[in-house]
Amino acid sequence: MVHADASNFAAGVTKEEAYQQVLDQAEGLFYEQRNWVCNLSNAAALLWHAYKSLPSPSNQVNWAGFYTLDPLSPPPPPTTTAPVNGKRPGPQQLILGPFQGKVACQIIAFGRGVCGAAALTKTTQLVPDVEGFPGHIACDGDSRSEIVVPIVVDDRLVAIIDVDCTVVNGFDGVDRVWLERLAELVGKGCDWPAPAFVSST
Amino acid sequence: MVHADASNFAAGVTKEEAYQQVLDQAEGLFYEQRNWVCNLSNAAALLWHAYKSLPSPSNQVNWAGFYTLDPLSPPPPPTTTAPVNGKRPGPQQLILGPFQGKVACQIIAFGRGVCGAAALTKTTQLVPDVEGFPGHIACDGDSRSEIVVPIVVDDRLVAIIDVDCTVVNGFDGVDRVWLERLAELVGKGCDWPAPAFVSST
Repeated sequence: MVHADASNFAAGVTKEEAYQQVLDQAEGLFYEQRNWVCNLSNAAALLWHAYKSLPSPSNQVNWAGFYTLDPLSPPPPPTTTAPVNGKRPGPQQLILGPFQGKVACQIIAFGRGVCGAAALTKTTQLVPDVEGFPGHIACDGDSRSEIVVPIVVDDRLVAIIDVDCTVVNGFDGVDRVWLERLAELVGKGCDWPAPAFVSST
Repeated sequence: MVHADASNFAAGVTKEEAYQQVLDQAEGLFYEQRNWVCNLSNAAALLWHAYKSLPSPSNQVNWAGFYTLDPLSPPPPPTTTAPVNGKRPGPQQLILGPFQGKVACQIIAFGRGVCGAAALTKTTQLVPDVEGFPGHIACDGDSRSEIVVPIVVDDRLVAIIDVDCTVVNGFDGVDRVWLERLAELVGKGCDWPAPAFVSST
C-alpha cells in the first residue's frame, strides 16, 4: 500500500541518492496506475520532499511541479507560413498541472519564458539566473533560478517538469541528468490525454 | 496576472479571514479558467498556505488536497440488488488529485475510510480522532484528525476536499462551513470530466 513514508528522505543523502529514491518510488507508484493527474501529483510530492531533505541550494527550492499541454491548445503551426482563412494559428500553450509550492501562472504559451522555451524546443532549460533570461515570467519574485525539462512521448510534447529555486545557481548538471530520467519515466508511465485539436497536416 | 503573492497570508489573520482570502483568490483564479486540474492545483496551494499562516492546530495540517471520481470507476450500483451476469458491480472509487503534502494513497473505494464515507454519503466528515473512525486508511501515520468535504455537481459526486492534521481536534465547525463554501465554488468553477462508464439505469 502507498504510504507517506515514500516521501521521507534520510538525513545526509546526496543529491544523486535523493533523486534515485524519487525515481524508485515513482516507478513503484506508477505500477498498475497510469492516471496522469494521480501520478504527477505524487511525483511532485516526491520531488518537493527530496529537495527539502538536501543542503542548500536544493533546499531553497520554492516550487516543484508540472505543466501539461493544454487540451484547449491549438494544433502545432503547419509547415507552411501561409495564413488560413486570413488567420495564423496561435501558439500552443501549457496549462498548470499538479505542483507543490505557491499559487502559479495558469497558462504559458510555447516559446514564452523558461517553461515555454523548453516546450517549444523540447530541450532542457537550465537557467542559473532567471533575471538574465529573455521573457522570463515572474510568477514569483522570490524565484532566482530554474530548471525546466520537457516530457516528450512519441515526439509530442505532453508536459514539462518545472523547478524553481530562491537562489541563483540552484541547479546543475546532476539535476539535469536526473530530472531528464524522471521525465522519461513519467512520460512512459502515464496515459496522456489526446489533444482536443488534431492537426490535419 | 496570477502571482504567488495570492498564497501569502498576513500574520495574525483569523481562520475566518484566511478562508475568506482562499475563497476570494480562488474565485479570481477560476475566472475564465475552468480546467479542473489547473484549478484544483492552485486551490490546494491556497489552502496549504492558509493553514500554515494560522496558529495551532491549523498550522499542523500535513496534507491538503483533492480526490476526484476515478474516470475508470464503475457506474453507481443499480437500484436492484440482483447480480448482472453473475457479478455485482464493484463500488465507485476516488483517485488522487492535486494536493500539497506527502505522497498519498492513489485509489479509495466509496465507503472506505473517511474520504470514502464522504463520497458515498455526499456529506462532510469531520473526524476529531481518525483512530476512532471505522476503516480509517492510515496513508500517513502522522495524521490524527481529518475533515473531508464532498464536491457535488448536479447531484453527482465529482470530487472531495481532504485535509489532514497531525493533532487530534484539528478541525471545527468553522472549517466545515468554509470548506463547504469552497467545495461549492470549486464545483461550479470547473468543467468536470464525464464518467467513462455511463449507467443504463
